[in-house]
Amino acid sequence: MRQFVVIGHDAPTTPDFSLDDLAGAAGRLDVLCRCVTSAFFLSHAIREDVRVHLVLDDSFTLTFEGSDLRRLNPDERSTAALIRGALERREDAIGHQPVESSPGVSIRRRGFEPTLDAVADGTLVHLHEAGTPAVDHAPPADPVFVLSDHHDFTDREADLLAERADARVRLGPRALHADHAITVAHNYLDTEGFRSY
Amino acid sequence: MRQFVVIGHDAPTTPDFSLDDLAGAAGRLDVLCRCVTSAFFLSHAIREDVRVHLVLDDSFTLTFEGSDLRRLNPDERSTAALIRGALERREDAIGHQPVESSPGVSIRRRGFEPTLDAVADGTLVHLHEAGTPAVDHAPPADPVFVLSDHHDFTDREADLLAERADARVRLGPRALHADHAITVAHNYLDTEGFRSY
Repeated sequence: MRQFVVIGHDAPTTPDFSLDDLAGAAGRLDVLCRCVTSAFFLSHAIREDVRVHLVLDDSFTLTFEGSDLRRLNPDERSTAALIRGALERREDAIGHQPVESSPGVSIRRRGFEPTLDAVADGTLVHLHEAGTPAVDHAPPADPVFVLSDHHDFTDREADLLAERADARVRLGPRALHADHAITVAHNYLDTEGFRSY
Repeated sequence: MRQFVVIGHDAPTTPDFSLDDLAGAAGRLDVLCRCVTSAFFLSHAIREDVRVHLVLDDSFTLTFEGSDLRRLNPDERSTAALIRGALERREDAIGHQPVESSPGVSIRRRGFEPTLDAVADGTLVHLHEAGTPAVDHAPPADPVFVLSDHHDFTDREADLLAERADARVRLGPRALHADHAITVAHNYLDTEGFRSY
C-alpha cells in the first residue's frame, strides 16, 4: 500500500465553491485535484494499492481508496466535483466516523496530526531538500509520503514530520509541485529493480 | 533545451469550445493542458530551457517557449484559455508563419510530420514499452520527447517515430499518462549525476 497525505492550507471546508475558479476562490483546489490524479492514474488503469488523504484546512480529511474508487476522471474539474460532493456530506461526519460520499471517497473530521496517527502503520517518508537522494535509498515497504499544496509546510507541520519520519528522502535536485512529486515518487517505487535484462 | 511534442488527436482547431468541459466537448484538451504544466513548472519557477509543441488534429501546432512564457498558471482552465487565445489568432497564421498570441505562445499551420522536421536538431527519444530502461540509458543532449494524448499513436505516427528516433527508452515498467511521463522524463534528466555526496 502506498499512501499520500496532502495538506491543503487554503482548501475549502464547505461545498459552496465554484468549479469554474478552482485556482482562485476555491483556495487552489486545483493543486489537490492534480495530486489525486497523479496518485491514482496509470495509462489505462487505476492504481488500486494507493490511498490518498487530503487534509482540508486542518479540519476535515477526505480519503480516496484506490481499490474502491469508481467515478474518478483525470481532469481537475471532475475531481473537484467529487471533493465538493464529499463536503456536501460533512454534516453527517459526526465524531470520528467517516462518511462515504461516492465509491471510494470518504470524509471525516480529522486534522493533520490525527491523520498522521492514522497512517502510523506505514513508513513515513519525509520529502526534504536535504534528504538522501532517492536513487541511493531503497524504497520502503508501505510508504507514506506527506506533501504540501502551494504553500510550504508550517513550522508545526514541519516539526511533526521531522519527529515522526522514518526516512528523509529527496526525489531530485529541483523542488517540484506536489502533484509532480507524487508522479516521481511512484516512478521511484515502480522502477525498484527495473533494469535491462 | 528539452522539447516535448504532444499529439492531440481530438483537440479543437477552432476557439469555440467551453472552458467548462475540457475533458468532454473540447476533445480532452485537459490532457494537453496538464502536459504543458508538467513541462514547465518547478515549485517556484518556470523551466526556461523547455519548449512544448502541441499538435492539434495534425493541422495546427502551438508552441510554448519557456524563456518567453508569461501568463502560464498551473491549473488546466487557465492553460486552456491560453490555447483558446492562440486559436483565436489562427486566421492570422498564414503559410508557415507563426503568430504569437501571448508572450511565449505561438500558433502556426503545421501538422505532426513537419513538426518533427522542425525539431530535427534535437535527439529524438522514442518512449516505448520495449525501449531501454531509462535508468540504463544516459540522458541525451537536447532531447525531444514525443507523446500522445489519451489515444495511442496512429500507425503512421508510430512508423514516423520508429524511423526517425535516435533512441528508444522506457521510463518505467508501467504505462503512464502523457503528462505524468513528462514529469518522469524531467526527473530522469534532472537526476543525471544526482547522487549522495
